[in-house]
Amino acid sequence: MNEELRHLLENCLANGSEEDLLVIKQLLEGVQNKIHLNRRTYIDGILHMEPRFEQDSCEITIPISPMIHNNLDIVHGGITATVLDTSMGVLANRLLPEGYGAVTNQLNIHYIAPGIGDTLRCRAEVIHQGTKTMVISGEAYRSDGKKIAHATGTFFMIKKP
Amino acid sequence: MNEELRHLLENCLANGSEEDLLVIKQLLEGVQNKIHLNRRTYIDGILHMEPRFEQDSCEITIPISPMIHNNLDIVHGGITATVLDTSMGVLANRLLPEGYGAVTNQLNIHYIAPGIGDTLRCRAEVIHQGTKTMVISGEAYRSDGKKIAHATGTFFMIKKP
Amino acid sequence: MNEELRHLLENCLANGSEEDLLVIKQLLEGVQNKIHLNRRTYIDGILHMEPRFEQDSCEITIPISPMIHNNLDIVHGGITATVLDTSMGVLANRLLPEGYGAVTNQLNIHYIAPGIGDTLRCRAEVIHQGTKTMVISGEAYRSDGKKIAHATGTFFMIKKP
Amino acid sequence: MNEELRHLLENCLANGSEEDLLVIKQLLEGVQNKIHLNRRTYIDGILHMEPRFEQDSCEITIPISPMIHNNLDIVHGGITATVLDTSMGVLANRLLPEGYGAVTNQLNIHYIAPGIGDTLRCRAEVIHQGTKTMVISGEAYRSDGKKIAHATGTFFMIKKP
Repeated sequence: MNEELRHLLENCLANGSEEDLLVIKQLLEGVQNKIHLNRRTYIDGILHMEPRFEQDSCEITIPISPMIHNNLDIVHGGITATVLDTSMGVLANRLLPEGYGAVTNQLNIHYIAPGIGDTLRCRAEVIHQGTKTMVISGEAYRSDGKKIAHATGTFFMIKKP
Repeated sequence: MNEELRHLLENCLANGSEEDLLVIKQLLEGVQNKIHLNRRTYIDGILHMEPRFEQDSCEITIPISPMIHNNLDIVHGGITATVLDTSMGVLANRLLPEGYGAVTNQLNIHYIAPGIGDTLRCRAEVIHQGTKTMVISGEAYRSDGKKIAHATGTFFMIKKP
Repeated sequence: MNEELRHLLENCLANGSEEDLLVIKQLLEGVQNKIHLNRRTYIDGILHMEPRFEQDSCEITIPISPMIHNNLDIVHGGITATVLDTSMGVLANRLLPEGYGAVTNQLNIHYIAPGIGDTLRCRAEVIHQGTKTMVISGEAYRSDGKKIAHATGTFFMIKKP
Repeated sequence: MNEELRHLLENCLANGSEEDLLVIKQLLEGVQNKIHLNRRTYIDGILHMEPRFEQDSCEITIPISPMIHNNLDIVHGGITATVLDTSMGVLANRLLPEGYGAVTNQLNIHYIAPGIGDTLRCRAEVIHQGTKTMVISGEAYRSDGKKIAHATGTFFMIKKP
């Protein structure tokens, strides 16, 4: 496997553009984050997601690069959805008692403006905390402060096995 | 840069688990896809998304691996959203006249069952095609045939610059 | 009370337009439906909602009149929502075991075309039936066959008291 | 027509319960509101909707009675949708330049708690005001202050004919 990976990398180095190499750097650093910083998931590591909590809210800010662009060279709506869902889900989990986990049951996203600039910041807040479900809102902002998306979601509380 | 990337890879090879290396393989192959197969985006390449069209529908099937798992070891809801949004957007774009592009205005997703198994297959269909907007549905299935998500979205048609 | 109601009616007869009187006719007939036909609710009676079941679907067709118009003289979006939600909820209830009821947890509606013409027909189908929730779709059509709205909703199954 | 309406009313008076007569009172008063107070629509009149504006928000409070109950004797979700949609649409219209109107393109509602008590109060606020669309949020509260629903919607701005 090691040789295969070295070979793959050399092939990319030989044929890739500068942008391709920058993306490879981010991807490898993402896996390194997973290995060394004990990130929960590869997606967390690769997108450089690091939740920050305040009273009743959770924020995740990630760098914007071509790695997460769509074919119009703006942030892919699926990535915005991923960071929104993660910030909302992480907040939901934090509010649950020990032994319970939160899963997304439904997610609605309004896309408002193109995701451009240096960073994408998502902020989740609680709309409703019930005994079986939570409703959470999430807002996504770009580095110039403009709101680019607004989401609401229903999260189910489940007892962990 | 080349030396930096080689160094990064060696660090991962030295410290990573078998799973970590498999994920690196998928990531590097993903960038290679972007370079050689002219995939539209890094996300397309990394997730191995390849749209297949039929009459009025579009399907994208991707492999499931730990790379796209959440912390419960099932497919991250944001990845399901990404593949749904992509299949729906690609279908919308295909139906537009030359010189126009489709952007997601709103996306609603019902998560129905955990994303497990070998593959995730998303299928988009047109609900409504108007003069300025389209409403598209998307359904996500896992390899055992179970539906794991159902989405609808509004897409705006914009004149490309 | 009887005298008060007679007085109210006479006041309307003296000052109302022909359209006002037609609306009063529909309203009084609606309450009569509730009294004599044992409709479940006043809303059912007033809107003349009568569910029709087929295998795995439920249809409700109501007459369109100025009574349910918005200020643009098309069917009020809230009425479309009411008939969609009712057809979807009635279907959900029909699929439940004895002693259980279904309540709407979340409802998403895409409005596609203006509600004009003689009738509004809503058709609900099951997308997913789980052990605790159901996902149901609903489509609204006008009498010329054009689809005017598309909805999906999550329904919770609850044990009746 | 006048005789027909009088006959209809007498039939209801003869066979209706006390609750039936109270509902008839509300319905006739609703039409009277439309006639005398120049309410925009019969729905506005019957539900007794009266928008109140503050800086960047709009509130509508309506009385709760059996007239708007579902078969579980709580406010019908379609009525909550109607009042939410109306408060959101009225706010959107107020923010538009002369000669333009707002139509609901998409509406997503989370139902949180049963609609009981004396009144239903809906409050709409602007999330995003663009050049062609607006995203508006709406929250519904009952008289004890509990939030019963949270909505977001996309409104299109159209030039009036």
